[in-house]
Amino acid sequence: MASERITRDQAVAPFFVGVDVGGTNIKIGIVDDRGNTLAHTAIPTDEALGAEAAMQRSHDAIASLLSELALTLEDVAAVGLGSPGSMDIPKGLILEPPNMPSWRYFPLRDTLSKLCGKPVGFANDANAAAYGEYWIGSGRQFNSMVMFTLGTGVGGGIILDGVSLDGSHSFGSELGHIIVDSRLDARLCVWGGGQGQLEAYASAPGVVARTADLLAAGRESTLTARVAEGELTSFMIYEEAERGDELSLEVIVETARLLGIGIVTVVHAVDPEAIILGGAMDFGGHATATGRMFLDRVREEFQARAYHVVRDTVTIDYATLGGDAGYIGAAGIGRSLYQRSGS
Amino acid sequence: MASERITRDQAVAPFFVGVDVGGTNIKIGIVDDRGNTLAHTAIPTDEALGAEAAMQRSHDAIASLLSELALTLEDVAAVGLGSPGSMDIPKGLILEPPNMPSWRYFPLRDTLSKLCGKPVGFANDANAAAYGEYWIGSGRQFNSMVMFTLGTGVGGGIILDGVSLDGSHSFGSELGHIIVDSRLDARLCVWGGGQGQLEAYASAPGVVARTADLLAAGRESTLTARVAEGELTSFMIYEEAERGDELSLEVIVETARLLGIGIVTVVHAVDPEAIILGGAMDFGGHATATGRMFLDRVREEFQARAYHVVRDTVTIDYATLGGDAGYIGAAGIGRSLYQRSGS
Repeated sequence: MASERITRDQAVAPFFVGVDVGGTNIKIGIVDDRGNTLAHTAIPTDEALGAEAAMQRSHDAIASLLSELALTLEDVAAVGLGSPGSMDIPKGLILEPPNMPSWRYFPLRDTLSKLCGKPVGFANDANAAAYGEYWIGSGRQFNSMVMFTLGTGVGGGIILDGVSLDGSHSFGSELGHIIVDSRLDARLCVWGGGQGQLEAYASAPGVVARTADLLAAGRESTLTARVAEGELTSFMIYEEAERGDELSLEVIVETARLLGIGIVTVVHAVDPEAIILGGAMDFGGHATATGRMFLDRVREEFQARAYHVVRDTVTIDYATLGGDAGYIGAAGIGRSLYQRSGS
Repeated sequence: MASERITRDQAVAPFFVGVDVGGTNIKIGIVDDRGNTLAHTAIPTDEALGAEAAMQRSHDAIASLLSELALTLEDVAAVGLGSPGSMDIPKGLILEPPNMPSWRYFPLRDTLSKLCGKPVGFANDANAAAYGEYWIGSGRQFNSMVMFTLGTGVGGGIILDGVSLDGSHSFGSELGHIIVDSRLDARLCVWGGGQGQLEAYASAPGVVARTADLLAAGRESTLTARVAEGELTSFMIYEEAERGDELSLEVIVETARLLGIGIVTVVHAVDPEAIILGGAMDFGGHATATGRMFLDRVREEFQARAYHVVRDTVTIDYATLGGDAGYIGAAGIGRSLYQRSGS
């Protein structure tokens, strides 16, 4: 579930650097012109030390990775930087990232650009991951695709003809916030998203909350014994589903139904060639019975509800790059910037 | 609610022709470089006579309009053509338009292009109308906007940085088919759209069906007496709402709520600067108390549910071009084609 490492001999110049900022870690990779990874690492974000220090340590980690490859920043054509929102992409700012208070309103892009002496492409982290899948992952044979990242939240990325849909307020492709349930008593997302939004159902906390409600209502499940021993997690629900627990399977089927509805909506709005599902909440992906069942049910819901023009032509599949998608995509966005500048 | 007519002296060359094909009429206009209309007309579609005959009569009507202005096709830089879907925009085909069986799989674009001897820009009718509003209507001060056309169906158009979002299967921007109600017993659209889609609620038949259900359930309304005399229409519901009928107002408020939910979803996906509402189902627009109330409730629903980044920055307003938007937008899409070709 990760991209291949290549040697310097196999690599095709020019080289690009991808930086994927997360709340816990910053992932950094050196990528060649075909999206293959020469070297990668992760450093702690250390949010409390501030964004400037994190960009300085990112620069140092880049220099160190390059040095191991007997390269320098001279050999790098451009850098790409994926960041959590909210952000102002044209201005290169991170604005109000949740849980990163000391980073607010920091000129992330230009700081890294100055440190590295390189142009830096800037994107939302979920759009960067989508661009990675588009470039060399599950989406590589498509001109346009949409990625849903299912994890502690639900992220989204829309790539149309090779361009990330950033939006007018750097808020494009926020697919966790599309509304799939219009009822007045629809669920609220634990992350403060609005009522009835996809994230309230298809994120890990959404799946846990719905399962907890069913357990509290007295439904039988092998989860009951496990919850007595520790906090309910989405991984537990996946494990019990793999063992045939009906309640766990029911919750996963309902998650697939609601995700399928969200996919129909997005397909009818932007009409991509493919939908790619990534993130930890893939229930094991193609490798497990639960993951395969989940994907089948998502596809069934899509086919039952999609307009005939797109019903049989849109591919729905899992992502292939795993946690590498973000830095690879960021590097790819740096590469687009480099190509557009005609350098 | 329509664009201004200008004289030839006021017009700025070059000139463009817009053709807006509908099931009943084909609207045709001669438009100048600033989007102002010099002359326009409408001819019957006469579906049964076939698409080729309709394109021939469109050509003749164009020639006649130009002749009245002492112009010829020599003075026209390009033509634009808006068509109902389904269609294949890259190939210039109309595929399977509902209620137009004799037009199936016809090369609409190239036929008109050959007849006129001009390049023809080709777009979905709803996207053409959106482009008209974007060019010289309610959307003219925005770089990106989304239009919802509320009528016998719900159409959509998405314009991002001046480009119509046509999609991979010429099915982009089909906003009537986004899902706003995920319940297993959600409404089906009378036009064959899937379950719980916006069109089932915010189109004229959707509003009529929901009202009829409430009347059948025995709810009191001044509509009851009118229904005894003739078929219930959305215009009747609007008229009784204007007179203060509570049931009619309730249905319109619920329509605004569901449209507001659809708008939140679209804004979180494509993040435009503005949302423009057009079509006959505007309940009178800014000119009536009901129309103003409807817009207020749509805005309130949006603000209650939208993410804070976009909540106060997205403009929601009515369209201004009325039934002229389609041919003006088609002409504008012809103009884009002309400008891109560098002629």
